[in-house]
Order: sequence, then C-alpha cells, then structure tokens
Amino acid sequence: MHELKISPLAPEKFAELLPVAGVELYVGASGENYGKRANILLARFSNKTIGAGVFTQSKCASAPVEWCQKAIKSDYVGAMVVNAGNANAFSGKKGELAVEKVAGHVARTIKVQPDEIMLASTGVIGEPLDPEPVLNTLKSMGNGKTVGFEAAANAIMTTDTYAKGAMAIFEDDGIEVPIIGLAKGSGMIAPDMATMLAFVFTDMPIAKNILQELLQKNVATSFNSITVDSDTSTSDTCLVFATAKAKERGIKPITYMDDPRIGAFSSALGDVLFGLAMQIVRDGEGATKFVEIKVSGAVSKKSAKKVAFAIANSPLVKTAIAGEDANWGRIVMAVGKAGEPADRDRLAISFGDIVVARQGVRAADYSEEEVGKYMKNLELKISIDLGVGTEQDRVFTCDLTHGYISINADYRS
Amino acid sequence: MHELKISPLAPEKFAELLPVAGVELYVGASGENYGKRANILLARFSNKTIGAGVFTQSKCASAPVEWCQKAIKSDYVGAMVVNAGNANAFSGKKGELAVEKVAGHVARTIKVQPDEIMLASTGVIGEPLDPEPVLNTLKSMGNGKTVGFEAAANAIMTTDTYAKGAMAIFEDDGIEVPIIGLAKGSGMIAPDMATMLAFVFTDMPIAKNILQELLQKNVATSFNSITVDSDTSTSDTCLVFATAKAKERGIKPITYMDDPRIGAFSSALGDVLFGLAMQIVRDGEGATKFVEIKVSGAVSKKSAKKVAFAIANSPLVKTAIAGEDANWGRIVMAVGKAGEPADRDRLAISFGDIVVARQGVRAADYSEEEVGKYMKNLELKISIDLGVGTEQDRVFTCDLTHGYISINADYRS
Repeated sequence: MHELKISPLAPEKFAELLPVAGVELYVGASGENYGKRANILLARFSNKTIGAGVFTQSKCASAPVEWCQKAIKSDYVGAMVVNAGNANAFSGKKGELAVEKVAGHVARTIKVQPDEIMLASTGVIGEPLDPEPVLNTLKSMGNGKTVGFEAAANAIMTTDTYAKGAMAIFEDDGIEVPIIGLAKGSGMIAPDMATMLAFVFTDMPIAKNILQELLQKNVATSFNSITVDSDTSTSDTCLVFATAKAKERGIKPITYMDDPRIGAFSSALGDVLFGLAMQIVRDGEGATKFVEIKVSGAVSKKSAKKVAFAIANSPLVKTAIAGEDANWGRIVMAVGKAGEPADRDRLAISFGDIVVARQGVRAADYSEEEVGKYMKNLELKISIDLGVGTEQDRVFTCDLTHGYISINADYRS
Repeated sequence: MHELKISPLAPEKFAELLPVAGVELYVGASGENYGKRANILLARFSNKTIGAGVFTQSKCASAPVEWCQKAIKSDYVGAMVVNAGNANAFSGKKGELAVEKVAGHVARTIKVQPDEIMLASTGVIGEPLDPEPVLNTLKSMGNGKTVGFEAAANAIMTTDTYAKGAMAIFEDDGIEVPIIGLAKGSGMIAPDMATMLAFVFTDMPIAKNILQELLQKNVATSFNSITVDSDTSTSDTCLVFATAKAKERGIKPITYMDDPRIGAFSSALGDVLFGLAMQIVRDGEGATKFVEIKVSGAVSKKSAKKVAFAIANSPLVKTAIAGEDANWGRIVMAVGKAGEPADRDRLAISFGDIVVARQGVRAADYSEEEVGKYMKNLELKISIDLGVGTEQDRVFTCDLTHGYISINADYRS
C-alpha cells in the first residue's frame, strides 16, 4: 500500500475528548495487514449499557453488518470488536462462522450472551476473515492497558489520512454529559471498500428506543448528507452506546419522547454525528476542496436533497470544482438530470455570495474574475434556488481529482 | 482548447457509407468557436420526408430540444440545421429567439413552414447563441457544394476525437435501402455539455408513427444502454429522417405494424443506432477500455439494467478497470447499492470467460494471474449472474482515468 499524504482539508489536530464513564478501550495489532500498527479495537461497556445502530442499505451487506442488525435488538451491549484490514464482506459461510467465533469468545470472556457483542469490520472485501489472529490478539488485549479515544480512532483506520473524533457536551442542571464519537472513512467508500464506520459513546441514561429514534433522525442530516463518490458500501455501520453511568452523577434517565431535555440531547448527538461526517468528507479520496451544496426553493425537502445529491455526485461538477472552474452550466445539467420539479427559467445559482445565474440566464453583473477568485478557496458553498417551492436541504461533498484516480486505479489493491 | 489525442478505442477509419436519395448535405464555418473548421451542418430533405425523434429527459432541456419536441409532430421535415460550439442551453428568452430566427430563415428559403425545420445545438452552455453568424453562414452554404456524410459528421463534433458514422442495409426483394447514421458525443456528456447528437437518414418509405415507434424501441438497447460518466445532458437528440425516395426504386411503403418486413427494418435501424452508440462509448472522455457489462439471473429486464448501470457508473469499478484490476469486490458493492433484488450468496461474477466468484464467494479455482492477463485487453466483458430470476440485460461503458480528470478539470472550459 502506498503512503497517502494527509488531506489538505484535515483538521489541525485530533479533537480534545473527555473520557466516558463505563467505557474501556483496548487496542492490539493482529499483524496481518498493518504490521505492528494496532488494527483491533475492543470496547468494553459497563453493565446495562444500551446500544442503537444504523447500517448500510446495501443488498450485499457484510457478515458483521448482518450480525449487528440482529444483535442490536438485544436489551444490552457488553462489548464491541472492530477489526481493520478485512471487511469480512462477500465471504459466505466462512464469514458468518468468523463472526460467531469472535463474538462467542468475547462473550465467554466477559460473561455475557454472544448477541450482546457488536462487531464491525473494514478493509478488503471477498477475502475470508481468519478469526484466529483476531482471537489471539483479543486474548492478549483484554487484560492489558486501556487506551484513550485517539488511539482507538487510529486503530480503526484503513486508508484514512487522519484519525477522526468529535465531542459534544449535553448539560443537564449544571452536570456535563459527554457524547464522544469516533469514525473512519475516506468517502462513502474507500479503496477495497474500507468504508465508513462511526461509533458514539456517552454515559447518558436513556431508553433504548429513544436513542435509536434520535440516532436515525440525526443520521439524515449528517452521514446521510455526505458523498465522496456515490458508491455505497457493504459495511457502513454507525453505533451509539450509552452506559447510563451519568446517573451516578445525578442525571435522571430520559425514558419518554416528551422529556423536555430531549431536544438538547438530540442536538448534541447530532453535533457529534455531523462533526464526524464532515471529517469524512474532508478526508475524501484525493479531495482538495470541501463543498457544501444547498438547494432551496424546492417542492419538498426530499426533492431538494435529491437535486443536491445529483449535483454532488456529478463527475463533471466535481471535476470543474477541482479545476477551480465556476462551471454553472454543469450544475444546470445536474439539476436537469435529477428529474425533480424545477423550472429552468427560475433557476438561480450562487457560488458563495456571488450570484452567477438568475431566472435561468447568466447574471447581468457576472464577473468571471470575482468568481474565479472565490473558487480558489479550500471550502466552497454552492447555492441553487429551484424557484418552485419553499423547501430546502443541503449535502456535503468534495471534488474529483487526479488523486482519486491515483488511489483507486494506479495502485493495485 | 487543448488538442485531444484520438481515443485508443477508435475504429480504424470512418465507415463506408452509401448516399441516401433525397438527402442533401451542406457544411460551413461560422468562425466563432472553431476558426475555419466547418461547424454548421444543413441537411435538406426532398418533399414528404418524415421525421421521428427522441430527446433528453433533462428538466433543463436546451432551446433547440424544446423546439424539436414540438416540431417533430409536424407531418413533414424540410431541413435540419446543426451548430457545434454553443449548445443554446440555459439561454432563456434569447435562446428561444435564436431558434425561431434560424428556423424562420431556413423555412423561408426552402419554402416550408418553420415547424418543418429541425434544429440541434451542441457546445458551451449558458452562453446566449447569437443567430447572426449562423444565419450568415447558412446564406453562403445553401447554394454551395453538397458534401458527403463524413464531412457532415466532422462538422458536428466538439470534443469528439473522431467522426462517427454507421450504416445498415435493409433489403427488400433484392432492392437495397441504406440506413445511415451520424453521431457526435464523447460520453453521455462532454466538456461544457457538448453532448450526444445522432441523426439517421434513410430513403425508406415508412409511416411516421411506425418510424417513431421503431426508433424508441431501438434507442433502449443502443443510446439508452451506454454511459460514460452518468451525467445526462440538456441537449441529447436523436432524429431519424426517411425521405421515401426508395419508392422510386420499387420499395413499397411500410404503413402498418404487422408488415412482414418490419422486423428486418427495425433490426437494420437498431444496428445503425447501436453502432453509433458503441462509437460514442469508445470516444468516452479519457477512455482506455471499452467495457460490456451483462447482468443475468435478474427478476426483470429493468432490474438487470439498473444493476448493470450501477456497476457501469461506479467510480470505483471504473477506476479499477483503468488500473487493470479485476476488483470484483467493487462489483459486489455496486450490485449491493443498486437496491434491486439480489442474493449475496448466489452471486456469480465473470471477467470474460473467467469465473472469479460463484455462490457469493471467491471461486475455488480463481487465478489472479489469469484474470490479470485478461484485464490487459482493450475490450472487456464483465458478467454478473444475480441468481434470483431469468431476465438479463447489458450496458456498455468505459473506464475512468486521469484523462477524464485532465479533460474536465485541468483545462478551463
């Protein structure tokens, strides 16, 4: 594997993260894919930790995704194991057996049921996952030294160019409850489908069904609003773990949906998911520009998002941005191909604050020089008003560069 | 504009094409975009020529597309004008006026109604089309020397690296009826949306409604089965003109759908459209591989095509092909994201005749060396069996290379 330069859009440093009561993290190196670099993460949770999860919509989901889709329904979660290097996807019966072996081992060790173990794998697809090196590594890890979130974030990386973490604090009557998130991913998909994984930890006491509902709600505006290359993976997994330990600090559990604190908690959870999602876009393969695409004046929020994604996924729009070319003609093309209600003669398009087209024609005061200068920014905002309604939405993406081709074509995977 | 090297997938030479009775072709240079290179094509048709057409599904169709969608309903077509260099798309009221001026001028000159003039434009989008240079060029062309199909095919090119023509012969009782096609396009879309145009000429006597029906049928397996970059243009136009002149050579008109000759005629028309479509894929921007993707074992033809397009449009699949990497993991990913019925544990994938995966796992006899050798071919066939039904379909695409990025990002358009 070739060395990847750190993305020019990377944050300056890893986020400052508070510890979460009831979460113990261990890492180890199984040695198969990354030598001595830790590539196995074990997270142990205190008694009565609950979990919530969302998973890839792929019809060819990986073995650990299929495992988690069932296991997440258990009342409690005892531990999670993540391995980087092999996605255990398209691995048939062998893949299922590997999953059962790893979950069974950890369950016996910490004395819980196998379906209280969550699993995630990321890396090469189609290679059978040999559970033995993972099991051996786990055996040497569990009694070792715990690590912090940054080491955990590093252990789950594949082709990421930097580790990803985010934090929000939910405050309740002066007591702080941390919500910590880790993620890996270099686009919706990275070479060999080493894809998006995100794990969130909090010691908030909260009912399982409510946590699941808040997760689904906040995924829509975070992970489900980003795209690097339109390719959805077999392994996408986002899990949230809540240990309820903050009860010991005086926080009362959230157990019903009209708890007055739910808005603030949901917002904090949303901030963490959003923060992680933005870090993934900024690590998009070969990315040199971070781009927000906002579509307003749509007939519905769903319609706005569909148009925004048509623009964000258009190779011609993405290459134009890479070339610092405010090629709004390609944006018109993408609006047109989205198939959603739009009126060519009402379209308005802006780059940043600069209106380049209104009412379906180039703006009279359009200045190539002014727009050209704006396009040199690392972060761009493109706004499109469809002029047919009052709804809006936004998505986030990056450009399409020679770097993407090099990562995915020049080097054999 | 930079010089583009001729695609390595180009045919050796322009097709040998017979003339079509009742079709006169003229070309001229308007001088604005391509200097002395001819960029205006005028086709004049004999009396009672009929036309059929299909157009882009874009919600932001160009002014000439909107014109043709109405004009194609006229009983007869008198002439067609094509200009290369300006797509007259997203050009508002000015664009409509330009279209009316050009059609009006030609109609008066040849003494037909304006709606008997068909128009197509290709090139930069969002620039108002000044009709004057086009009109001046037309005035100098109409009485000049007629040209052959190759000159006509050259006049409609924008970023194409070669001119595209195809022919099929429909034979009726020993009498030959030529069906000739010309096209331009370097992908579903080329820089600045200079996009796919195709024109077919025949002297077959045939009823308008039947010609329209046969065109639509054959477009499904030709132009609607190719993709370069998933970007649908504002200008896609495919027109068929039938002069009926072959009546003079003894051919009886096709006037009802159960005419016994209709299958053979439809097949010949389909061959021309298919030949042109393949030439467009072979001229895909930056293409170095021509790829057929066949999906079988699907629950329906539509489902098979959707899966095939998900594979053909996947940047990760396309870059893997560019890298001569038989990365079937990425094909699994694309099957999964298509959202169509598929069973991971029944999937089979072949490159050429080499089975790389069956029943959802890597084939036991998989040989990296053998597949690696196959991937060096310029023309590849990838077959996927979904294992859930009996229907199949295929699409054609090309790889995604540094050349695509260079054409669309490195050079300002």
